[in-house]
Amino acid sequence: MPTPYTELSQRLADLTALEEVVGILSWDQEIVMPSGAAEARGRQLATVQVIAHERLTHPRLAALLDGLQHDAALDATQAANVREAQRDVRKATRVPSALVRAQGETAVRGHEVWVGARKNKNFQEFAPVLGELVELAKQRAAAIAPDMPAYDVLLDDYEPGMTMARLDPVFARLKEVLLPLIAQVRAAQNVPDMAWLGQHASAETQRQVGENIVRAMGYDFTRGRLDTAVHPFCGGAGPTDVRITTRYNEHAFLGSLTGMIHETGHALYEQGRDLVLADQPVSRPRSMGIHESQSLLWEKQVGQGAAFWQAHYPKLQQAYSFLREKPLGEFLFGVNYVNPRNFIRVSADELTYPLHVILRYEIERELFSGRLAVHDLPAAWNERMQGYLGITPPDDAVGVLQDVHWSGGAFGYFPCYTLGALYAAQFYQAAVAQHPEIPANLAHGAVEPLLGWLRRNIHQVGSRLETDALVTAATGRTLDPEAFLRYVTAKYTALYQL
Amino acid sequence: MPTPYTELSQRLADLTALEEVVGILSWDQEIVMPSGAAEARGRQLATVQVIAHERLTHPRLAALLDGLQHDAALDATQAANVREAQRDVRKATRVPSALVRAQGETAVRGHEVWVGARKNKNFQEFAPVLGELVELAKQRAAAIAPDMPAYDVLLDDYEPGMTMARLDPVFARLKEVLLPLIAQVRAAQNVPDMAWLGQHASAETQRQVGENIVRAMGYDFTRGRLDTAVHPFCGGAGPTDVRITTRYNEHAFLGSLTGMIHETGHALYEQGRDLVLADQPVSRPRSMGIHESQSLLWEKQVGQGAAFWQAHYPKLQQAYSFLREKPLGEFLFGVNYVNPRNFIRVSADELTYPLHVILRYEIERELFSGRLAVHDLPAAWNERMQGYLGITPPDDAVGVLQDVHWSGGAFGYFPCYTLGALYAAQFYQAAVAQHPEIPANLAHGAVEPLLGWLRRNIHQVGSRLETDALVTAATGRTLDPEAFLRYVTAKYTALYQL
Repeated sequence: MPTPYTELSQRLADLTALEEVVGILSWDQEIVMPSGAAEARGRQLATVQVIAHERLTHPRLAALLDGLQHDAALDATQAANVREAQRDVRKATRVPSALVRAQGETAVRGHEVWVGARKNKNFQEFAPVLGELVELAKQRAAAIAPDMPAYDVLLDDYEPGMTMARLDPVFARLKEVLLPLIAQVRAAQNVPDMAWLGQHASAETQRQVGENIVRAMGYDFTRGRLDTAVHPFCGGAGPTDVRITTRYNEHAFLGSLTGMIHETGHALYEQGRDLVLADQPVSRPRSMGIHESQSLLWEKQVGQGAAFWQAHYPKLQQAYSFLREKPLGEFLFGVNYVNPRNFIRVSADELTYPLHVILRYEIERELFSGRLAVHDLPAAWNERMQGYLGITPPDDAVGVLQDVHWSGGAFGYFPCYTLGALYAAQFYQAAVAQHPEIPANLAHGAVEPLLGWLRRNIHQVGSRLETDALVTAATGRTLDPEAFLRYVTAKYTALYQL
Repeated sequence: MPTPYTELSQRLADLTALEEVVGILSWDQEIVMPSGAAEARGRQLATVQVIAHERLTHPRLAALLDGLQHDAALDATQAANVREAQRDVRKATRVPSALVRAQGETAVRGHEVWVGARKNKNFQEFAPVLGELVELAKQRAAAIAPDMPAYDVLLDDYEPGMTMARLDPVFARLKEVLLPLIAQVRAAQNVPDMAWLGQHASAETQRQVGENIVRAMGYDFTRGRLDTAVHPFCGGAGPTDVRITTRYNEHAFLGSLTGMIHETGHALYEQGRDLVLADQPVSRPRSMGIHESQSLLWEKQVGQGAAFWQAHYPKLQQAYSFLREKPLGEFLFGVNYVNPRNFIRVSADELTYPLHVILRYEIERELFSGRLAVHDLPAAWNERMQGYLGITPPDDAVGVLQDVHWSGGAFGYFPCYTLGALYAAQFYQAAVAQHPEIPANLAHGAVEPLLGWLRRNIHQVGSRLETDALVTAATGRTLDPEAFLRYVTAKYTALYQL
């Protein structure tokens, strides 16, 4: 007879394997699947997901968890494993399957309608199904935690423990510093010519340069691969199979590179997970916000910094003749260039990006509290865009319809992007405080001791600690926007000579 | 409440989806998976396979099948679907899971030991684990059908209904005609120089030429793809996702091409399956032998014939300068060249190939009847090789250890290769008898009406008919080696001017 904990581990390992299978089927669908297979792939995915849901909601699993959750004989890792599994089971059990099915079906329809509405630049085509998706998300929240505000329950899906009460002051503080800083940048006169950013660079050269840098960052190609995707992502199946993707625009060579560095940040987190416990929830990345902190730490803190490019800029100069005569400083300006007149979140710079997120957060809050009606969304969107960035989208396609998330019924996700940016700054500054040689080492192309610090404090920890405990153990304090604000203020004051 | 047949169909559709998932995981493992993911992939595959086995042996499925198997209200297709599912369930239920596990684990070990033994050219290293694999296969056969000879049960795994009693006279007749024919070929003096077969041809050119021909054969790239594999195969997930693979040797340009044509034959079968019933057993390819008939029909009957190359040889001449001055007749001799001094089955020509198979069949028979002991295999092998082809392998690596099948516990599979060759000749001759314009159309690059005939008589039929009924409906008779013997006698008598 296995012990209850052993039986639990076996059941959780099977669930992990099924999740990994979904990871491979999804990667395959995006990267290599022939177009004619889409319908069959839908059936395959649904079959595996239904089986996983049946197993996650199996009474035996709940009984094992109930029996173990106050078991004093468990060590800290085992107890954390029980806690994480308990969280999954509770959510899966509380949401009725009819609601799961309704959400799934409405999301499929929502995506189709959104594609058409965006093409027609007409939000009102999308409004009815968006209303349904909001209603279903409210029902889901009520099923999980009827005593909590619905939007807090949704935030918790992506960022366990996060609430509006915690986010509000953080976002208020960001606005307080970023809005005047952006105004100063906008007024700056000394912006050099940056036509070189659009010079021709072949996809193959971009791939070679990128692969070289990705490898230098510590990405292990024996446990991953690099492919081309329409919408780049980091996917795969567990820490030994972490696949990154990028896309190549032959007239925007920086895009594939920063994209690759970003996905490699995610990938280093996955590859750095505890291999012994890889099939247990306790080894999983902590949250979406912490995951994003890893991609943004490499993309922004490291990959937009002078030290990193001291090591790698010569490779670019060798690959691209148009950079041969360009000094590193000018290249760095291009890498960090701020464009406050940009409507689109995904192409926003790090200074304006938080405002794109705050705008969506504030709108989502009001949608779920009932203060804002779905059909009033475009007006609310445009008003805030004008208030924060001083621009008004010419149409809904580059305004309220630009992001895919709502069409799939994902609400409460956007804050993770900015939480990631804040955590990234906190982590990087803590790592440098403990290892002051990090910048000098990066300048020589060495990712140690930075990578080792991340391995020990984030990657290997996985979900052993809850988010606040993890961040406190790593940085000495919980979520704190000041690290990010210090960083952007110093950086952009210097860059724009404010 | 669904009807019993509807409930059955749903359960079978889920099983099909799981099989397709295994198909994608396996393709991924061979073609794109990073090496470090092997262990995790093993766990993922095992998890899905255990779930599929649980569902296949679920008492509810057996009860539904028992209730439906004499239901006069079912139409012919439904009844065939019940029959095919019943067969799967019966085998899965009768074999104890401890035996399944023992076979799986021994096969993994067997493969490792075989790799080492082949490297060391020493069969006796492999003998003990091979003995275990034979013993386990006997146990499996006894569990499925205790009253049948073990080897008949194993044959039936791959070729339902096939027995030693049916194979013996067929193989005796093949030997009767092929042995003297091969002796004549061996004595023939007029073999031209064929050094051109080893001329350099880049992998990329080989791919382009091959893809062009594969497309012309009717392979649908919107429901498939072509990749490079160490051991080429046709895989994927159901009729809308049929993936072929090949390998390129830059000093053997014909190999990738005939390999691609072969795999395309398999792929056309899969792509031609009944799409409406794609998730039910009744739409499955009939057997391994019938599957091989489709690859060999295209590779040999069509792809080694003058008509096909009248259409496609000019493409090769354009791609490869060393063929520009070479007449079609000389090229065709190279395509069909017979080498009776070849030890290796996979590189054998169509005249000697059946003898490689008969040798293995005779040895397997004797192993399972107990007339031959495992440690006497090399002697039995070499003696038959000398008797059939007049050659003795210099060592076990190119003799008894050359094939992977036994190391995985697969016994009774080899006859399918030759059954495929015999069925291919029967089908092709029947198609031409019904549509005499087939060769002339092939000479103009048109695969119709041949492909249409295969679609109607083989691909769309799937498993609606059992093998004998399928072959009789298509050709007017059951398995009959005379079509193949007529074909090779005529062809090689002309080619070698015997």
